[in-house]
Amino acid sequence: MLYTSIENKKIKQIKKLYQKKYRDLENSFIVEGEHLVIEAYKNGVLKELYLEQGKNINIDFEKKYISTNVLKYLSNLETSPGIIGVCKKIDKNEIGNKIVALDGIQDPGNLGTIIRSCVAFNIDTLIISNNTVDLYNDKTIRASQGMIFALNIIICDLDKKLVELKNKGYKILSTNVTSGKSLKNIEKSEKFVIIMGNEGNGVSNTLESICDDFLYIEINPKCESLNVGIATSIILYELDK
Amino acid sequence: MLYTSIENKKIKQIKKLYQKKYRDLENSFIVEGEHLVIEAYKNGVLKELYLEQGKNINIDFEKKYISTNVLKYLSNLETSPGIIGVCKKIDKNEIGNKIVALDGIQDPGNLGTIIRSCVAFNIDTLIISNNTVDLYNDKTIRASQGMIFALNIIICDLDKKLVELKNKGYKILSTNVTSGKSLKNIEKSEKFVIIMGNEGNGVSNTLESICDDFLYIEINPKCESLNVGIATSIILYELDK
Repeated sequence: MLYTSIENKKIKQIKKLYQKKYRDLENSFIVEGEHLVIEAYKNGVLKELYLEQGKNINIDFEKKYISTNVLKYLSNLETSPGIIGVCKKIDKNEIGNKIVALDGIQDPGNLGTIIRSCVAFNIDTLIISNNTVDLYNDKTIRASQGMIFALNIIICDLDKKLVELKNKGYKILSTNVTSGKSLKNIEKSEKFVIIMGNEGNGVSNTLESICDDFLYIEINPKCESLNVGIATSIILYELDK
Repeated sequence: MLYTSIENKKIKQIKKLYQKKYRDLENSFIVEGEHLVIEAYKNGVLKELYLEQGKNINIDFEKKYISTNVLKYLSNLETSPGIIGVCKKIDKNEIGNKIVALDGIQDPGNLGTIIRSCVAFNIDTLIISNNTVDLYNDKTIRASQGMIFALNIIICDLDKKLVELKNKGYKILSTNVTSGKSLKNIEKSEKFVIIMGNEGNGVSNTLESICDDFLYIEINPKCESLNVGIATSIILYELDK
C-alpha cells in the first residue's frame, strides 16, 4: 500500500489527530520516529504504521508506505525520521501506592518530562486534572521519550479523586516554600500522593486544604523557583531513595 | 520617542538580534517581558528599553515606545507582553570552586533550565563548549527565567579549559551508567567540575579520559535515561546538600 496524495481521505484523517478534539473522538494519537513506534508496538497500542518509501523498521507489523510529500504533510517535525505510528490511547490499570498528581500543568514539554521522571523513579500512577495540557499532544509524547506507554495515567476531576485517596489512607503532599518542611528531612510514607501545581499559579486553594503535609526544595534565594519538571523530578528522586 | 514603522533602520537592527551572528557582532541580545527586563536592569546589562504604546514598567530607565505592528514584528512570542529589552552580553568573573561544564548541549530549553538550576544550587560558574546552543538564544533566556544574569558563564574550548582546571586541583566528574558510582554515595569535593554531555551522545571520549570519577543516578530500567536538564538538576541538588 502506497499513499501519494495529501488529498487522500485516510491521510487527512491522520493529520487531524494533531488536534485534541479528533484525538478524543478517535481515541487515537500520533507518534513519530523509530523509538516511539517501537515503544508503542511493545506496549500493544500501535494501530497503524506508515513509512516513507525506502524506510524500514524491524518490527512484525503491517507496513503502509507514504511518499515524501505525504510525509511532509503528516509530520510535525522539522526533519522527519520518516516513520509515523497511529496509536490507540492507553487503558488505565490499578492505581498502586506511589502517586503523582498534576494540577493544570500547561507546557507539554513539562508534562512529558514529568512522565519520564515518574517512570525513572518508580511512581505507580500519574493523575492529571482535566485542565492539564493534553497528554496525547505530540510534544508531550516526544518529551516523555516513549515513557507515556510505560506509566499508568488517569485524567480526572482532581479535587474528587484526591479526597477519595485521602480517605483511603494516602498521605497527601504538596510543595509550599513558606510553610513546608525541607525535602531533605521529609518522612517517607508507604502510600502517598504528591501534588504539583501549574507553572504560574501553583496548587489551587481547594487542593492545598486537603494536604497532610508540605515540603520545599532549599534553593539559593537569588533563584525564585525551579521549573516544575525539575522540581517534580528532584522530589521523586528523593522519595525513591 | 515612538517607532511606528518596521522599515525603520533601528527596528530592523533589533530584529536581527534573533540571529546568532548579529548577537556576536553587536555583543547584544534581546529579552522580552517585565521579569526578564527587570533582571537585566538589576544586573546592569540593559542597554535599550522598548514598550508598546500604553504599557509601563517601574524602573528608572529611558523608555522608547513602539506601535503594536512594530511589537508584533519584533516579538518572538505568540502573545507578547509588550516589553522588549536590548541587553549587552555579560562579562565573566572569578571562576569559583563549584563548576558545571556542558559539552555540546543542543536544546535551548535544556540550557536555560540548567542555568536556572545552577543558580538554585549554588554553582559558581557554568562553562559551555563552543558547540553548545547559543547562550543568547531567546528560548535559552526564557527558560533560564532571568537567571542568565545571575550566573557566571564562560564559553570556551572545553578540552583545554578542563585540563587547566584539573591541574589546578579541581576534581573532574561526569556521568556514566555502566562504570559510575551511585549519586547517593558520592563523596563531595570542595573544588569540582561536573561535565554533562550532549542530549544524544553524552560526553566526548576526550573529556571522559580526563575525568577523575563517574557517577550515575539510579533509575528504573524501563526508563533508558533522564532528560539532561533533569539529570543535571538532580546531581546539583545532591552535591549542594
